[in-house]
Amino acid sequence: MNDLEIAQKAMMWPITKVAANLGLNPDDFEQYGKYKAKLNLDVIADKAPTKHKLILVTSINPTPAGEGKSTVMVGLGDALNLRGLKTVIAIREPSMGPVMGMKGGAAGGGYSQVMPMEEINLHFTGDIHALTSANNTLAALIDNYIQRDNQIGLDPRQIIWKRAIDVNDRSLRNIITGLGGRINGIPREAGFDITAASELMAVLCLATSISDLKQRVGRIIVGYTTEQEPVSVADLGFADAITILLKEALKPNLAQTLAHTPAIIHGGPFANIAHGCNSVLATKAALTLGDYTVTEAGFGSDLGAEKFLDIKTPVLGRTPDAIVVVATVRALKYNGGQKLGELTNEDLEALRKGMPNLLRHIANMQQYGYQPVVAINRFTSDTQAELELIKQECAQINVTAVVANSWAKGGAGTLDLADAVVSATANPVSFQPLYDHNDPIESKLQTVVTKTYGGSGIVLSAQAKRQLRRISDNGWANLPVCIAKTQYSFSDDPQQLGAPAGFEVTVRELIPKIGAGFIVALTGSIYTMPGLPATPAAVNMHIDAEGKVEGLF
Amino acid sequence: MNDLEIAQKAMMWPITKVAANLGLNPDDFEQYGKYKAKLNLDVIADKAPTKHKLILVTSINPTPAGEGKSTVMVGLGDALNLRGLKTVIAIREPSMGPVMGMKGGAAGGGYSQVMPMEEINLHFTGDIHALTSANNTLAALIDNYIQRDNQIGLDPRQIIWKRAIDVNDRSLRNIITGLGGRINGIPREAGFDITAASELMAVLCLATSISDLKQRVGRIIVGYTTEQEPVSVADLGFADAITILLKEALKPNLAQTLAHTPAIIHGGPFANIAHGCNSVLATKAALTLGDYTVTEAGFGSDLGAEKFLDIKTPVLGRTPDAIVVVATVRALKYNGGQKLGELTNEDLEALRKGMPNLLRHIANMQQYGYQPVVAINRFTSDTQAELELIKQECAQINVTAVVANSWAKGGAGTLDLADAVVSATANPVSFQPLYDHNDPIESKLQTVVTKTYGGSGIVLSAQAKRQLRRISDNGWANLPVCIAKTQYSFSDDPQQLGAPAGFEVTVRELIPKIGAGFIVALTGSIYTMPGLPATPAAVNMHIDAEGKVEGLF
Repeated sequence: MNDLEIAQKAMMWPITKVAANLGLNPDDFEQYGKYKAKLNLDVIADKAPTKHKLILVTSINPTPAGEGKSTVMVGLGDALNLRGLKTVIAIREPSMGPVMGMKGGAAGGGYSQVMPMEEINLHFTGDIHALTSANNTLAALIDNYIQRDNQIGLDPRQIIWKRAIDVNDRSLRNIITGLGGRINGIPREAGFDITAASELMAVLCLATSISDLKQRVGRIIVGYTTEQEPVSVADLGFADAITILLKEALKPNLAQTLAHTPAIIHGGPFANIAHGCNSVLATKAALTLGDYTVTEAGFGSDLGAEKFLDIKTPVLGRTPDAIVVVATVRALKYNGGQKLGELTNEDLEALRKGMPNLLRHIANMQQYGYQPVVAINRFTSDTQAELELIKQECAQINVTAVVANSWAKGGAGTLDLADAVVSATANPVSFQPLYDHNDPIESKLQTVVTKTYGGSGIVLSAQAKRQLRRISDNGWANLPVCIAKTQYSFSDDPQQLGAPAGFEVTVRELIPKIGAGFIVALTGSIYTMPGLPATPAAVNMHIDAEGKVEGLF
Repeated sequence: MNDLEIAQKAMMWPITKVAANLGLNPDDFEQYGKYKAKLNLDVIADKAPTKHKLILVTSINPTPAGEGKSTVMVGLGDALNLRGLKTVIAIREPSMGPVMGMKGGAAGGGYSQVMPMEEINLHFTGDIHALTSANNTLAALIDNYIQRDNQIGLDPRQIIWKRAIDVNDRSLRNIITGLGGRINGIPREAGFDITAASELMAVLCLATSISDLKQRVGRIIVGYTTEQEPVSVADLGFADAITILLKEALKPNLAQTLAHTPAIIHGGPFANIAHGCNSVLATKAALTLGDYTVTEAGFGSDLGAEKFLDIKTPVLGRTPDAIVVVATVRALKYNGGQKLGELTNEDLEALRKGMPNLLRHIANMQQYGYQPVVAINRFTSDTQAELELIKQECAQINVTAVVANSWAKGGAGTLDLADAVVSATANPVSFQPLYDHNDPIESKLQTVVTKTYGGSGIVLSAQAKRQLRRISDNGWANLPVCIAKTQYSFSDDPQQLGAPAGFEVTVRELIPKIGAGFIVALTGSIYTMPGLPATPAAVNMHIDAEGKVEGLF
């Protein structure tokens, strides 16, 4: 059976039962269909008891071989519950752009999935659509402001607020709007980002309340006046309307795994072009309701986990109690040079060559003060010798590596990992952030590139240098940095696998996201709007007369 | 109290209770929050018993004075229930573009509202967002197809599929996409319509099942090849994926009025730039579940009702049993020349001068075979003499005119109208469509303009003439016409109030909407993407720390 078939055959509990098991009353949530709910914000404690444990799951760099971080995370949650520990998982909601494009659905796999898989991947409870509509309402209000009296003197050439859409559409990256004469607006260069990379997505994911949401929305800088003064959403008087459009989307969503572990699924920023973590409120909700919270950060430790620990953690008000790094034999061999078609053949040499990728991800977590647990996500082709090699190399640096059979066996296949993680949460952590937010922007970028990516330093484009001056002049230099970089390599070149060193990272643009509270650095040739592949996933989908869907995953 | 305050203070029934009162089982619907639900398609009978009565509510031309068609419709539904008749109302869902722009929320008013008003006006159950995302996914797939191998030979200069968004954004009417070089697509002229005017909205509103939805989506013409051959969504292989994105949106939504009358709210095409009727499935659901169904068609009888009777009725498989035309003293006086600031003063002369507007709307319904009931939606400033004048002029042509006090008193204020409507449904109707679908396109346009608008004929632009030839050549001439025209006048000039005659209507463009199954005719200077006013409604909205909203209506 493929993932969708397993999902379609699963017996879900009514979401009311999942909620009741968490100790929630019917007034604590609102149903969205039989198997989804939105949690009311008043069930979320601002500070959950510290004995409630937070486990962060990250991974090595993704490869076409597949890593299965979500699968392991779901399996881990299920396994902890099998051990009698009240566990909640907290993850991001998938963007539909990739579902229709290259990636297919994102909700774990095999017997470690979140449910209802189809709905989670298609519209879900509408959060991303609410963000899209709020984003574009703001864009329309801005263009209308310029078209009308424009009292503030917003410069049409300096509007940095982009439109957003949850579609992979390269044709919308660079457009000209407002053509057709006076009644059709003012012609200007514009563009769309995918909603997962939008500032409002980050704002939603970092907001801690309706008030905080409104303040963050108000702080967003949309552009500059002809006098070079920054103009915020609050300056224009649009903060309340935009917040109103997001007030339901701010509530975390409740779903379940195949094994009925509660899954809080909320916020969907990509980790390569955004901060890559589910919402602060989702994590807080899980921490309030569960003794153990298993959460994820997107892609490798260089992207999602770095942003989790340097951007999300200060807002969340606490740090993880343990960290899991997911790896696979296949992906490490691919990093070590084995060809994609040959990954089912044992190749200890390629595996050994690929290990430095894992080791750097481990080291990355160590520099924050963690001794991570390595989860080897098992594929059927893995040989015992290959699995042992990973375990031994990890053991040499006192890191526990555990085989997780989450795809084939769900929680029952992930019990060893669960035990290792529970042990790890007992170790004291002396958390050390990677950088001080008060360091200069360039120094923060330099720190991430040298300490986490393993590079030698950064190069700023002429445009980035101009933008950096403006950021400093406006007093925004004390914000953390959110680096947009390819997920496939520690460097900004997707071809450099393994653990490259000595490279420089080119920063193309520095974009102030004052509502989110960070400065985005675009590196290499990363796009904030993906394109569709030659054969989009959409063309292989099928729906029958009863509405049954095939080919979604 | 204003409408929003009345709505916020209302005691709603749980939607489970509203559904149970309709005889629905818990498996017949899915909750979306405590007060909204989506109905499963299998509760909808293809043919409801003919003894179940269908009542269509239309109105005179809208004016800035306000007509309150939705208010009267809701009051009528409540009144019929007060009379012990099992009644369901079936209406459209509001677009958020106007909510943020000029119009404010749309869900009735005073004590005749549908609930939960705020949610219905903001995102609701996500149907319009699903349409937006399906629409733009299709656009991205088309541009990607051209960017890739383009085997069919789609001509980038002849793509008629536009993007869509549920925002009033004039800057998106005319744009250039695909700028920035090879990897960013093929530069071409493009544009956005508001989602309420999109072909997918019409497709959703006219589809009778998942299969029919897929077939309609497949039939949509997205453009032409360099050889001038039309290219459909099915030709490109995208019909299934787009249908998958719409499968939940196809299910009608259940809500309630303040008096707990079930309200099926589904589909939101504007009547000036689209076909202006709620979905066929919503109307069928109401007809299945209620002994009386009260439904609406947008704006005046020249727009929504004409399209209801000539486009929707053949798909619905039945015609209304009675028709109500809503008028107000104020709006008729405005039509008769009284100034906006003076409408609270009695002015029988202006009222007499404005009456021809009402009389033509009555005559419009008579030519389909109906003797409509006139509902005079009462405002506090109306004088007895003014109300009597309307009644008398109607009585002279044997039309019953009844005062409806729906805003101030809800169903209790609308009982007389309910009684008149029940009487009207007892009269046999010999339904006569305005035109034969097999008439030539030009003749169908001519018929609507001369028989319904009261004009002397049509003028086709050079572009419309070219498009007409193409429509005929491709065998689409037997489709009905969906005329996009200003709602403020019978003519295509919004300044011509009352009952103008002798005017010609200029058809600017003829656009084939083969999935919807009609030919759109754009007249005058009507836009399929509205703009925002100088002071958008958005700037007067407020949200407090608990999420309570003010200024939405």
